[in-house]
Amino acid sequence: MIDKDKQLVFGHRNPDTDAIDSAIAYSYLMNKLGYNTEAVAQGHPNEETSWVLKYFNHKAPRVITHAYPEVKKVMLVDHNEPQQTIPDIKKVTVTHVVDHHRIANFDTLAPIYYTARPWGCTSTILTVMFHHHNVEIPKQLAGLMMSAIISDTLLLKSPTTTKYDVKAIKELSKICGVDYKTYGIKELKAGTNVAGKSAKH
Amino acid sequence: MIDKDKQLVFGHRNPDTDAIDSAIAYSYLMNKLGYNTEAVAQGHPNEETSWVLKYFNHKAPRVITHAYPEVKKVMLVDHNEPQQTIPDIKKVTVTHVVDHHRIANFDTLAPIYYTARPWGCTSTILTVMFHHHNVEIPKQLAGLMMSAIISDTLLLKSPTTTKYDVKAIKELSKICGVDYKTYGIKELKAGTNVAGKSAKH
Ligand SMILES: [Mn+2]
Ligand SMILES: [Mn+2]
Ligand SMILES: [Mn+2]
Ligand SMILES: [Mn+2]
Repeated sequence: MIDKDKQLVFGHRNPDTDAIDSAIAYSYLMNKLGYNTEAVAQGHPNEETSWVLKYFNHKAPRVITHAYPEVKKVMLVDHNEPQQTIPDIKKVTVTHVVDHHRIANFDTLAPIYYTARPWGCTSTILTVMFHHHNVEIPKQLAGLMMSAIISDTLLLKSPTTTKYDVKAIKELSKICGVDYKTYGIKELKAGTNVAGKSAKH
Repeated sequence: MIDKDKQLVFGHRNPDTDAIDSAIAYSYLMNKLGYNTEAVAQGHPNEETSWVLKYFNHKAPRVITHAYPEVKKVMLVDHNEPQQTIPDIKKVTVTHVVDHHRIANFDTLAPIYYTARPWGCTSTILTVMFHHHNVEIPKQLAGLMMSAIISDTLLLKSPTTTKYDVKAIKELSKICGVDYKTYGIKELKAGTNVAGKSAKH
């Protein structure tokens, strides 16, 4: 039986585009499967993420500093380590984790859903999970997930890029109807805040 | 690019049927995907597992006490905690984990493949993974995996049993052509070593 207790889904502190967009994506997927979740964030979106959210006309997730006592259960995306998560993590139960970082100082009292893959982006893992669960990725969400992959892999140029990221970015690009190459350059520029500043070396 | 370095795949100390059969299953799957692995075990099969291996005509995995220096990389099934694994775990790299227990004192230096589900048996998770990778489960292996689920869930009677275990056991039963209910009773009896002993209360 799917757990109906309200859960918060969030990425790491000082959230980047993957932390925010993967929370939105995972919350959407889990709700489709019958869970009762809300995507939130441990901080406000940075410049790149704000630009992405504006481009795809999606509002920024509610900012939280604690999960308890609002909820008793949480789902983590894009992180697992204590110093990256909410300060009251020990007061709640982590039921699900989807991440692509090393695992450190993460302990549970009971078995949980933990999915980690050594790929370039959490949104890449989530793309695969949507397939596994036969849930269609809506256009707007595909745009956000594509943006997360562009962000984490620096438009597929980072050495952390894997074939799974390439495959996912192409698929998400098709779904949202936005060419990831031209869009990606604009997204990365928005994050460096080049616009409006004088040319630098 | 799939990693071709030799890896050992094994379950926990004092291995039970799931520890042994899931190692055999995961090694098979990973090799189909291009990895170079061997299923081993941290101990000899117990009575139940010996009975299962004999029934399906599969030899017991080689027993190891250490992984290093034979290999530099390992895959863990059915456990993650240090006291459950090989004593020289810190000398090797854990590249993959598939487990259904709580996570405790498990740390990595780099991102890895970690798949944990709060289900009744590691072999259940592996059944799903075979599907995701579009790899057919051969008859003999299906028998071993079915036996692991029977063992861990006490023929689906344990409170740890989930709908995923039920679904998997039925599917594996069909593949190996052995009725899990009648077979399962015999398997569990073999483990309690009732045969040959006088009736107990
Ligand atoms: Mn991040
Ligand atoms: Mn990330
Ligand atoms: Mn076990
Ligand atoms: Mn087990």
